[in-house]
Amino acid sequence: MKLKKYAVLLVVVLTLFMSACARNTANQRTSLLTIQQQGSFMVGGTTISEPGKFNLTNALKPQGQTLHGDHAYVFYQIPPKARKYPLVFLHGAAESKKTWESTPDGREGFQTIFLRRGFGVYLLDQPRRGEAGKSTVASSLAPTPDEQFWFTQFRIGNYPDYFDGSQFPRDTAALEQFFRQMTPNTGNFDVNLIATACSQLFDRIGDGILITHSQGGGPGWFTAIKNEKVKAVVAYEPFSSFVFPVGELPKPIQSASLFGELKGVEVPLSDFEKLTRIPIMIYYGDNIAKEPTIVWNKDHWRAGLEMAKIWAATINKHGGKATVVHLPETGIKGNTHFPFSDLNNLQIAALLSDFLKEKKLD
Amino acid sequence: MKLKKYAVLLVVVLTLFMSACARNTANQRTSLLTIQQQGSFMVGGTTISEPGKFNLTNALKPQGQTLHGDHAYVFYQIPPKARKYPLVFLHGAAESKKTWESTPDGREGFQTIFLRRGFGVYLLDQPRRGEAGKSTVASSLAPTPDEQFWFTQFRIGNYPDYFDGSQFPRDTAALEQFFRQMTPNTGNFDVNLIATACSQLFDRIGDGILITHSQGGGPGWFTAIKNEKVKAVVAYEPFSSFVFPVGELPKPIQSASLFGELKGVEVPLSDFEKLTRIPIMIYYGDNIAKEPTIVWNKDHWRAGLEMAKIWAATINKHGGKATVVHLPETGIKGNTHFPFSDLNNLQIAALLSDFLKEKKLD
Repeated sequence: MKLKKYAVLLVVVLTLFMSACARNTANQRTSLLTIQQQGSFMVGGTTISEPGKFNLTNALKPQGQTLHGDHAYVFYQIPPKARKYPLVFLHGAAESKKTWESTPDGREGFQTIFLRRGFGVYLLDQPRRGEAGKSTVASSLAPTPDEQFWFTQFRIGNYPDYFDGSQFPRDTAALEQFFRQMTPNTGNFDVNLIATACSQLFDRIGDGILITHSQGGGPGWFTAIKNEKVKAVVAYEPFSSFVFPVGELPKPIQSASLFGELKGVEVPLSDFEKLTRIPIMIYYGDNIAKEPTIVWNKDHWRAGLEMAKIWAATINKHGGKATVVHLPETGIKGNTHFPFSDLNNLQIAALLSDFLKEKKLD
Repeated sequence: MKLKKYAVLLVVVLTLFMSACARNTANQRTSLLTIQQQGSFMVGGTTISEPGKFNLTNALKPQGQTLHGDHAYVFYQIPPKARKYPLVFLHGAAESKKTWESTPDGREGFQTIFLRRGFGVYLLDQPRRGEAGKSTVASSLAPTPDEQFWFTQFRIGNYPDYFDGSQFPRDTAALEQFFRQMTPNTGNFDVNLIATACSQLFDRIGDGILITHSQGGGPGWFTAIKNEKVKAVVAYEPFSSFVFPVGELPKPIQSASLFGELKGVEVPLSDFEKLTRIPIMIYYGDNIAKEPTIVWNKDHWRAGLEMAKIWAATINKHGGKATVVHLPETGIKGNTHFPFSDLNNLQIAALLSDFLKEKKLD
């Protein structure tokens, strides 16, 4: 009788133990985030010095003083038992690392989605932007009302109309958040400064995957050229600074874009070839023209997508592994210029996870 | 015999279970961070609109377009079973939320220290700073070398000398990080804009504790006046905008400060009295003059500390609960203007934990 009692007690205790363990694991997977380490630092940058000697009794005079600027700001989070390669996120024009954080309607962005999936994440504010605002060059900021332009340029719709089936949330609060997350340059955009800071980040953290958006695409290619620790590049709607080997520059692509024709950039063949040694994935969203049109936003991105296809073909001709995915062709409709924060961003994240898995990068 | 075996097995299983539980708890306390929710959003702000009608075919013209600016950016992290009140952190002059993140030498700052202690944390970039850079006013940025001034002003030492026993790390890499984390205004500093954004943050998140630094002290007092959801204010080295009831303004404090004399600011008695209803704690660090001196940095902060003492006495005369702690008088030596990121920041954090516990705010 006593024996039976002990046996029952043992089963009860074992059940408790196992369910506690299971609960703990489930929490980590679905609800609670666990983080081994998080923090922030500055990387890259230049320094200017005013000639002369610093005088403590005349300390507002610049003589003998320094100014450190042009660095990137980095916020990072590393989960326990992180996957092999962390993800490094570089935002686009007029954006900061905010672009990868909460979406305009408050859902989780790629920062937290990929942290949950076990990746270390590094989010940059590029030199002369956001918390990396300290610049070694002068700048004038003018508050020019232009948000209806950006609504249209970023293919939420043709203002004030949203595109049919747009993956941008419809509430005005989300649109206000979207407008407010834009933040100005505090010095001119400088591809080389940004690529240098990104490359120094990889020197610090080791091998990783670079994820870029839009204007960040250009400095992204140059980062991968500078640093072989970049093990893959994933570019969302890259625009500008598509690099080609000397002598292989395609004709500029004419379009109705308000930014004019789209040109490639020449680099030495030996630099270009560095981009042929890593997997590269490029995604473009919806509402991009198939043929030239006077609808300038749709035509701007038509030029971008066409250039990306020419570029990937050039990479692949040189032995590389670049893929361009035009999302609507795979059945994923309605994406704006910001697929990673659109309403279907978990679907977009799944594509990235699949790519990393397929290339054995996760 | 069989009975004994079951008993032994039961003890073994129980021991395993308890040690697994203990390990899990210990991890959460010392090593792994657990987070229920994290994200970012913009709060507060104003909007300007250009008269006219937006014309899609002339979209670079400002007519009929808007510009949203002057909001704060907020990054937040909430641990599971968070304590009653979250901590809201407002940085000082030329800083961003970075000031509360990793220290210049890479240790954990108050963001992560207090997250580990179970507090929800909200970190702001104030309007026209950092990732809240979008401003409704014009601004000119000039890169003026001035870091040796700030080294001295912030009481790391009298440049190039560190103060004896300074709690600032001695390596040049840390000093470089410190210089690089400064980031410029993208529009004039506006106390009311900042306080309005902070107050709207409390409207959104509910009751909490406001933690300010330096220039953030002023908008901090106005936030607590605006919003009774501010349940306490903790101010590190507040400077500027000490508020007094009409008719009770003290004489300006003369000093050798390069910023000139220090004045209080008059507010209606009914506003002032709102600050008497919550606990207020103020901390100042080391190397502040006791008597007037021509050493301008030490004298600048002498004026600040004297004003803080007059202010706290006025608060308390009106029935309030304000305390000024001059850290060296409690035996804590060597703190710069940034006690929360100094080498002894865990000791500084312990004071804050003790204060919150004593006031039953944790």
